[in-house]
Amino acid sequence: MNEERILLAHGSGGKLSHDLIENIFLKAFYNPILSPLSDQAVFASPAGRLAMTTDSYVVNPIFFPGGDIGKLAVCGTVNDLAVGGAMPLYMSVSFIIEEGMPVEDLKKIVRSMADAAKSCGVTIVTGDTKVVEKGKGDNIFINTTGVGVVKDGINLSPSFIRPGDAVIVSGTIGDHGMAILKERGGFDIPVVSDCAPLHELVRDILSTDAGIRAMRDPTRGGLATILNEFADSSGHAILIEEEKIPVKEAVKGACELLGFDPLYLANEGKIVVVTSKDSSERVLDAMRKNPLGNNAAIIGSILEGSVTGGGVNSPARPRVLLTTAFGNTRVVEKLTGEQLPRIC
Amino acid sequence: MNEERILLAHGSGGKLSHDLIENIFLKAFYNPILSPLSDQAVFASPAGRLAMTTDSYVVNPIFFPGGDIGKLAVCGTVNDLAVGGAMPLYMSVSFIIEEGMPVEDLKKIVRSMADAAKSCGVTIVTGDTKVVEKGKGDNIFINTTGVGVVKDGINLSPSFIRPGDAVIVSGTIGDHGMAILKERGGFDIPVVSDCAPLHELVRDILSTDAGIRAMRDPTRGGLATILNEFADSSGHAILIEEEKIPVKEAVKGACELLGFDPLYLANEGKIVVVTSKDSSERVLDAMRKNPLGNNAAIIGSILEGSVTGGGVNSPARPRVLLTTAFGNTRVVEKLTGEQLPRIC
Repeated sequence: MNEERILLAHGSGGKLSHDLIENIFLKAFYNPILSPLSDQAVFASPAGRLAMTTDSYVVNPIFFPGGDIGKLAVCGTVNDLAVGGAMPLYMSVSFIIEEGMPVEDLKKIVRSMADAAKSCGVTIVTGDTKVVEKGKGDNIFINTTGVGVVKDGINLSPSFIRPGDAVIVSGTIGDHGMAILKERGGFDIPVVSDCAPLHELVRDILSTDAGIRAMRDPTRGGLATILNEFADSSGHAILIEEEKIPVKEAVKGACELLGFDPLYLANEGKIVVVTSKDSSERVLDAMRKNPLGNNAAIIGSILEGSVTGGGVNSPARPRVLLTTAFGNTRVVEKLTGEQLPRIC
Repeated sequence: MNEERILLAHGSGGKLSHDLIENIFLKAFYNPILSPLSDQAVFASPAGRLAMTTDSYVVNPIFFPGGDIGKLAVCGTVNDLAVGGAMPLYMSVSFIIEEGMPVEDLKKIVRSMADAAKSCGVTIVTGDTKVVEKGKGDNIFINTTGVGVVKDGINLSPSFIRPGDAVIVSGTIGDHGMAILKERGGFDIPVVSDCAPLHELVRDILSTDAGIRAMRDPTRGGLATILNEFADSSGHAILIEEEKIPVKEAVKGACELLGFDPLYLANEGKIVVVTSKDSSERVLDAMRKNPLGNNAAIIGSILEGSVTGGGVNSPARPRVLLTTAFGNTRVVEKLTGEQLPRIC
């Protein structure tokens, strides 16, 4: 067994850095833009509007059911581009590695990034590696920054959301959060992360050419947080129905047992779409034809007028309301504490 | 005194994350592209060729004489674009913060980033914040990814380097490395980091329209590492003269005392330029007129033919040679170990 480990010198910019880049990164990510290994990648500027997004991934553990930090780092950034209507094109990758990390683990993660990038049609054009002393990091943190292009005619924004619009979610919620929880706690729950690239699902949604107002992927903070952001940005209250929200039985059961709410659990392969009421069925059909959207469901709608809270601790603002299975309606607040740290 | 500290919940994606973004990041970085706070920034694609570069900054300590991790994170990425001949335009910023970091420190760093971005004419368009548990990070790590545009007609690459070309360095070497060393060790050395944005110096160099072959900023691994990279990429040996390399007396003295070699110390505001022999004086003049280049010097030249080593431990490849003050000539090897971890 190979027990080679990352040393501080792998981050020195000297010979060991060079070896790491040549033997691991360039081998896995090879393409003509990356291969000169300059301080910067140069490529033709795509026509139209550019989209740019960045995320640092600190998920713990780095390997989990359904994926690893590498796959997550590529898919997460692709998804942040996709939900804005952008097709992902180029990506930078930057590693902060804790001294002592097994090189085998790094190789596995890098391979998984290369596979994900290939399946997303995204080119890894430039990168960076830093190594910090043992105890000053945690295994590996990865930043990916993506650049994509937004086709003419595509304009998405929560500010376009109107009363009567439909809210669609592309599948079961909470799978990623529960998969991480399962791995951390050693629980026996039949669930894997939904970590997946959503650019093709988004392409299918946009190809319906139906009144799409806004899209968002409900990662940290879960569905509840995204819906609150939609309400804040649009100025309209939102009503969703608990019974219509797809949640795997295993996730539902584990949430009850462990005291979590699936509405706040992170997802890494789901999308929330707000469309005009008229086009909602058409969009739903298009989503269900894509394997990543086959459990898609209309879960609620945008309300006429702004339903606000009242009182000192509940200042007036558009609210997200949930009708429970028992017919009660309650306010779904923003996540206020930390439900599950280092979920992505 | 404000003793507010960063909590895990500041990285949750929920309410505290939102507050941090609104009150600290958006306030400091405000611009119309960033302000929608979407998952992605959208802007018109600049005409021509795009350059993209990424770096994660893990410098320790985060405040040092002449700068801080924030200024470094903006300047370092601007410089990586600049040395490729690109004018910096857009930047993403991603923070990995250790739980417990004083909010005041974060504010100071963010202000310093905003100032640096303004002085570089670069727009911070998108960002991300993660928080890791106490002991799983070290204060703050910052990734910046920059996008710039390369003007038509500009083509720089170490592969263009030819025998007879001149090697110019823009000023004294080792200042940043020694400033960090001074701060870590509490030494009394009169030196501050040279951390500065180099895009205007590069603009001045390129405006000479003289045979510029390649430029590089000698950060991690120092001048020795960049020259070795130039030798490797061009296939030509390089000869430099010790007496011509600008080094501050204080840095020279401290290096002797502490056992460091200025050739390997990091710089954060210096540039190494290779030009045709004919245009070297013209380029030198242009550099010296810029305050960031007023100690610029021609330090050597590219050799005719490939001077290679020999023997088992010294495989044949183009070498960097240094003529010492005593008239001896020695090989300047690539940095093999770690001279000074977390220098940037």
